[in-house]
Formats: sequence, C-alpha cells, structure tokens
Amino acid sequence: MAGKILLNCDLGESLGNWAMGNDAAVMPFIDQANIACGFHAGDPVTMQRTLQLAAAHGVAVGAHPAYPDLVGFGRRPMVLSNTELIATMHYQIAALDGLARSQGIELSYVKPHGALYHAMMNQPQVRAALIAAIASYHRRLPLMMQATRYADSHREEARIQNVDLLFEIFADRAYTDDGSLVPRTEPHAVLNREETLAQVAQIMRDQTVTTASGKSLALQADTLCVHGDNAQGVAAIKAIRSLVDAG
Amino acid sequence: MAGKILLNCDLGESLGNWAMGNDAAVMPFIDQANIACGFHAGDPVTMQRTLQLAAAHGVAVGAHPAYPDLVGFGRRPMVLSNTELIATMHYQIAALDGLARSQGIELSYVKPHGALYHAMMNQPQVRAALIAAIASYHRRLPLMMQATRYADSHREEARIQNVDLLFEIFADRAYTDDGSLVPRTEPHAVLNREETLAQVAQIMRDQTVTTASGKSLALQADTLCVHGDNAQGVAAIKAIRSLVDAG
Amino acid sequence: MAGKILLNCDLGESLGNWAMGNDAAVMPFIDQANIACGFHAGDPVTMQRTLQLAAAHGVAVGAHPAYPDLVGFGRRPMVLSNTELIATMHYQIAALDGLARSQGIELSYVKPHGALYHAMMNQPQVRAALIAAIASYHRRLPLMMQATRYADSHREEARIQNVDLLFEIFADRAYTDDGSLVPRTEPHAVLNREETLAQVAQIMRDQTVTTASGKSLALQADTLCVHGDNAQGVAAIKAIRSLVDAG
Amino acid sequence: MAGKILLNCDLGESLGNWAMGNDAAVMPFIDQANIACGFHAGDPVTMQRTLQLAAAHGVAVGAHPAYPDLVGFGRRPMVLSNTELIATMHYQIAALDGLARSQGIELSYVKPHGALYHAMMNQPQVRAALIAAIASYHRRLPLMMQATRYADSHREEARIQNVDLLFEIFADRAYTDDGSLVPRTEPHAVLNREETLAQVAQIMRDQTVTTASGKSLALQADTLCVHGDNAQGVAAIKAIRSLVDAG
Repeated sequence: MAGKILLNCDLGESLGNWAMGNDAAVMPFIDQANIACGFHAGDPVTMQRTLQLAAAHGVAVGAHPAYPDLVGFGRRPMVLSNTELIATMHYQIAALDGLARSQGIELSYVKPHGALYHAMMNQPQVRAALIAAIASYHRRLPLMMQATRYADSHREEARIQNVDLLFEIFADRAYTDDGSLVPRTEPHAVLNREETLAQVAQIMRDQTVTTASGKSLALQADTLCVHGDNAQGVAAIKAIRSLVDAG
Repeated sequence: MAGKILLNCDLGESLGNWAMGNDAAVMPFIDQANIACGFHAGDPVTMQRTLQLAAAHGVAVGAHPAYPDLVGFGRRPMVLSNTELIATMHYQIAALDGLARSQGIELSYVKPHGALYHAMMNQPQVRAALIAAIASYHRRLPLMMQATRYADSHREEARIQNVDLLFEIFADRAYTDDGSLVPRTEPHAVLNREETLAQVAQIMRDQTVTTASGKSLALQADTLCVHGDNAQGVAAIKAIRSLVDAG
Repeated sequence: MAGKILLNCDLGESLGNWAMGNDAAVMPFIDQANIACGFHAGDPVTMQRTLQLAAAHGVAVGAHPAYPDLVGFGRRPMVLSNTELIATMHYQIAALDGLARSQGIELSYVKPHGALYHAMMNQPQVRAALIAAIASYHRRLPLMMQATRYADSHREEARIQNVDLLFEIFADRAYTDDGSLVPRTEPHAVLNREETLAQVAQIMRDQTVTTASGKSLALQADTLCVHGDNAQGVAAIKAIRSLVDAG
Repeated sequence: MAGKILLNCDLGESLGNWAMGNDAAVMPFIDQANIACGFHAGDPVTMQRTLQLAAAHGVAVGAHPAYPDLVGFGRRPMVLSNTELIATMHYQIAALDGLARSQGIELSYVKPHGALYHAMMNQPQVRAALIAAIASYHRRLPLMMQATRYADSHREEARIQNVDLLFEIFADRAYTDDGSLVPRTEPHAVLNREETLAQVAQIMRDQTVTTASGKSLALQADTLCVHGDNAQGVAAIKAIRSLVDAG
C-alpha cells in the first residue's frame, strides 16, 4: 500500500440554497469523493454538480447513504429494520449510480454516513444488513469501513456474502488502543496539523498509528478520511496530499 | 397494433404505513406498472415490493417520477427550472432503475405523474426539459405521453433528441374534440363500465375514439391507461383484459 | 374514578391523499382524540378536519407529537438531544394548539406517539426532556403516560417541574407483572373482545388488571386507550363505551 | 410616519446543520424579524434560537410562512387549494406563535415568504385565501404586503375581512412605474449602497420613490425590507438604521 494510499472526503453536502463544504477547493486534492444521496443532504441538482466536479478532476465517486433525516444531517441514531435498511441503501446508491452514469462516470464504492456509519461499526446486525444490501445490489461495489482491530473479522463477515471492503483511517483523529476514535468530547481527540501529518507519515511508513496511550497499533488502510469543512481543513488536505504524493 | 395494445396502471403508491391501491389484485391483469419513485409516493420498501410483484407476474415496469410533494401526492402544479427538472427526473428514474436491476428486472419506460404529466402535455418548455432528461439519462428509455391530436408534433420533438415515445389512451375517460380529456369537473367525464369497454373495443378496432361531441377522433395508442384504485376499478381492469386478450 | 374513566384514541393519522383510521366512525364514542401533528402523520388540512370533527362531537383534543419520521410513522426509535426534543415538542404542540383555537376549541393534554412514547416510558432522560418541554410550554397542559407500577415515581418527577400527568391503561392489551405490556411478538399480547371488556370492567370496579401470569396488579388510570384502526376495533370501542357509560 | 419607519428582515433561515444569514449580526439593527416556520427553512431548534435572539434585542417577531418546499427554499411557485393555503398558513403561524409565547414573546404580524409572497401580490385568489387565513386565525395579526399602486385596493380587500395590513418598501430594489420591483434579471434591479440610502431618505422625507424611468411614485410604507445575507448587506442595514434613527 505504501505510496498508494488514497484520500477520501465527504462532499456534495449542500441542500438547495444551503451551501456546505468547499467542494471546489477540495476536489483537486482528493482521490475519492463520498457523495450525499439526498437522505441527509444533497438534492438532485447538488448531486449532479458534485458528480460533474468529480468527473472534471478524475476523482472516484462513492455513494454516501444515510438515515432519512435532513434536519439531523443523518447524525441522529435511528432504528430501521433489515428490510428498511437494505431498501434504503439500494435506493440511495441507485439514485447516485444513475446520476453518475448519466454524467459519464461510474460509482466506485459505498461509504455509509454519520449515525449509519457508527451503527455499522458498533452493531453487528446493522453491519450484516449493510453487507447484505451491498451483496444484493446489482452492481458489485466495495463497502468502506473504518480500519480497527477487528478488520479481519469484518473482512470475513463480508467475504461470506462476497462483498469487498475498503478500510479507512482518519487522518486527523486520535486513536484508542482498540482502534476506535477518541471521542470528540475528550481533549486531544482531534489532531493538529503537525500531529496529523505525523500520523499520516507513520501510516504510510509502517502501517501503524500511535494511540492516545502511546501504544503502537497496526492498522491496514486503503484510504485516509480527510475533512474539508473549513479553510483550515482545506489547507490540511493540501499538506496531506503533498505528503502522500511524495511517497 | 391491433391485438397488441397494452394495459398500464399506476402502482406502488403506498407510503410506509399508508396503503393505497390494490397492487396485488391489479398486477395479474396489466402489462405495464408505473411505479412511484419516492417523490409523490413510494418509499424504498414499497418500491422494492412493487418491483418484486411485477417481476412475479412478468409485468414491465416504468418509472413514474413526480414533483417533490408527498402531501399533495404530486398533483399540485409546481414550477421547477429545467436544471431542476432534469436532475429530479434522473434521480427518480435512477433510484427505481437500480432497485429494479437488484430484483433482476429492468426498467422499460418513463411516465411522469400527476401535475408533472399535465405540465408535460400543456407546457412546451416542461415537455422539452423532460425529453432532455430522457435523452441524457444513461439508459435509453421511451417516454410515455398522452395520445392527442398533436402526437406527430410531440413525436418530432422527441425524435430530434433521439427519444422514443409511447402513447397512451385513457380507457375510462371521455375525450374532447382535440384529444384532451373532458375535465373531471364536468358531467360524463368518467365513462361507466359499458362505455369504457365500448371505447376500448373501438380503439382496438379502428384506432379512434368518439368524442363527447360525437365526432370520431383518430388516436394511435401503444397502451391503455387503467385505474385500479378501488374494487370497481379492479373489476373494470379484468373486463378490459378479457376484451384485449380476445383481440 | 369509578364511572368517570375516559376513552382516548389516536386520530387524524391520514396524510394528504392517504387515508388511515376511521375517525368519523370512532369520534362519537370517545372522550379524547390524540391528534397527529405533522411529524409522523397529519398534514395541516387533515389536522384541521380532525379538530372540526372533534369539536362537532364535543371530544377533548390532545397533541400527539412524534419523532420526525413520516415513512416510519414515528415508530422507529431515534435519538434526539434534549434541546431538539423540547423544541420539537413545542413546535408540534403549538401547531395543533393554534389550529385548534382557530376552530374554537382548546388543547387539553399531550400524549407522545409511537417510539417517542416508548422512549418516554423506558428512558429517564427522554422522559425528563418531555416533562421539561411540557413545563416550558406557554400553556399548562397535562402529559399522558402509561399507568405502570412506577406511576408514583413518574408523578413525582413531573410534580417537581410543576407538570400534571394523566395515566392511561390499554383496554385491549395483556399486562406483565410490572405493569408493562406483553410484547406483540408474544402470543395473547392482544386481548379478544370478551377479554377486553372483562379487563375494562375490572379496571372500573377495583382499579386492577390481572396480569398474564395471573397476578392482580393495581393500576390507577384516568383514561383507557382504545384502537379504531379497523371495523373490529370500532365495534370494540362501542362495546367499551357502553360498558363505561353503564358505570 | 416620518421618523417611525421600521426595518424588517428575513431571519431564522438556517436548517439543522446548514447555516444561512447573519442573524446575530443583523438582529441589533432591525425592528421586525420575519422568522421561517419550518416549511421553506427553519427547524424547531433554529426557530427557538431565533426567537430568543429577537427577545434579547427587543425585536418584534413575525411569522414567515411559505409553500412546503425545503429544497426550493419556498421560491418555486406551487398551486395549493384555498383549503390547503388556509390550513398551511394556520399551521405555520401557530407553530411559531406557540414557540414564541413559550419564550415569553408574542407574534406581531405575518409576512408570507418567497413564491407565496409573489402569489399574494399577483394572484387575487391567493391573496384572498391568505387574508381569509389571517381572518380565521384565532389571534388578530396584521398581514404584511408590498406597498404598490394598488395598496388602497388591497387595504379594502383586507378591511372587508377585518384584517389589518402592513405595507413594506424594499430599501435596495429599483421600482417600476406601477410600484412593482424591477426584475432581478434586469440591470440596475438592485440598488447600490448610495442609491439605497437615497431611496430610504426619500421615502422618509416625502413617501415617494423615484422609479427606474425617473417618475415619482407615492408609496405609503410602514416598514422597510432589508437584507442581511452577506457582510455587505449587514453593513447596509447599519447605515439604513443610522439614517432612520437620525429621522
């Protein structure tokens, strides 16, 4: 993986007249755009424009499906049945899939958003439903998850259903010893620029992160999650890009 | 076309816990199911179930996109820009398209719903936008319109953009001399069973309808729109099916 | 309370073109209508019509607020912050309050719906937020809860915030020993007509229910929750009404 | 009116995580806050916070109801029946009314938003329905309209239904000879700072505006509509405030 790690970023999170993020500033520096599908953000016009921007920059696009909750931005936990989860995933992936093909590009992967992502990592039943949704979608697409100590187990769960996984590491977040993120409510949860670059360099060099307690934790990752919500984030992405390109 | 006329019906118009229509009773007797795509009706689970039902009965499925208006059931006129219309069409078509393929079937056509259908028939700019939406969708799909005196003109508008049209006649509605429907606010707008069957027989026999004023109006049709909202409608569909099958 | 027990029923749960329930059939036989406020069901026109129907029959009206989830009918658990819960409650109560006053009647109480009701009964933090919402609403309104073994404790929680409670018993549901309902997934969770009437008679006579295990459980109730979703439910309501009126 | 003209501004137009406007920067300089009610913008928490901000600055609050269209921000024309318009107005006004009273303040007026405002000015049937909605709301609230050449006629329409009107002039928009606004699609539709201040001074001095063609047009106004969407707008509001306060 050395020298090949990718950068992924959530984009297309505007809604009608409400703008969010800095898509045009971020797109030139990333490899994978996680695009909102209309349930937590992203109306059809926004989705189409984000796809066009990704196409212009040769950025791979992934579906970023979520719970149906615009006001909560998909960050409020909900409980959906497996049937609802699968149909809701298919609907969102399919909507972006067809919009993308109509712009001449193809979906490359699926990364659940917000509370759905957390449920995928923490609730085996939800994870199984999401894997089943990917397995039963008509096009083969890998599912992006968080790289944790349980990656091998997650990979096995997916393999049984013939689903590929992509693992991501958070460039700018501190890790606990079990490979989960230090909660934002705690101090030092979010790394500063220098720490972020050091963490990225370490991941590239030896595929480990140093946890908050000082231990070395092995984490295999296909992609780094970066955040471009503000000017500082955009600057960080450029620095990470330079570091990654330098190999 | 004689002996080959198809029956199309709006289905999949439930929403979550709210049931609408008699999909299971109607599906065995029709050829084309116009399936709601989530904007005026039809949540992801309802869409999936309707697709499964159509697949089980070998019924062709069409996307039935609408203005974004659940409370108004897509029947309230709205004004969207061309950009919004195209993206909104792509989104809805794509969502159903991907759900359908994941059930092992493929979309066969697109029929706009409610106020969007009326705008397509009455507003050249909206019609042009919908044709452009079909033309720019990644999969070639015919657009279903109402057969009127202006069918040749509509066909030419579509041909320029390389779009195929399907024309439909309303089995149970009275026609004016220009090939539009007698408004429901007028008496005799809706035909009774006997009149409906006579109109269908006449369409099959000589591709005309007799208008409310008694004139004969030539209308070429690929498909007959039928309504299964209630028990009476379901019975009428069965009778029309028998008539059509008898050739 | 003997001879004074009231009947409450969820009404106004249609949405636009989608009809639900038998409001006109049920309204003459109940005392309290729990009216949906637009978040799980009930558009503005439906709310207005339900209020007019309640006014015509002299039925007291209560706000029936829910999580914002039309497709899930407010039955899917969600996690909202206390701030969100309070504002969401105020919004829904206020909307119905102003619609009611504009029809010449006044709100009498608030009864949370579906998953929000269950969260109120099972999660102390949610219950505290709902009590705080009632306490901070500009008009003094009692909060309706389920009568359980913990009623005294719940009453004390509310009293501290100067909120009145109304307790309800479910006429047609079997009870466990701790005063919660036998889950619908278990056999005999729902009582038949004869059992329902026996349970109501027992409540009226000695303010107890006999639990599924055969024990006698004391439950003080201000009101009986009845269900009019289908013809059988409507008939049951009439029978309960007769029993209650006979005193 | 000299020395008493008020400044009104649309506020509370954020939605969940999406921020819009500069409410905190604008509020100290205006007299009337038009607050979104959840149909084009403004979730319950946003509404509550905007009311708190208005209360802190002693700013009068008005309901800013709209067509139900979040993605279109209430700017896309829709056609609702009179029954739907009245119920939709009551719902939105009532929701803000109850939230406001729960914050210790009272609604002062109603100003329709976006496409609904334009329909009110241009379609007599819609205007009549909105006046009827105000007339049938349980609390007496004036309706804010645009000051045009037809103000006397509008006032008479309202008087018949016992409704008071407030007339507003747009501080920063050029006027046509009939007192409507020069469309934004035309050059010079929006005034620069100097022109805006000159127009405000003229309104205060002799209750006229000079139209785009150079004519003097008498327009009686109770309030000036100002826009605080960006830093330039906020600065303009401060300048207008100074001018108005200087009398």
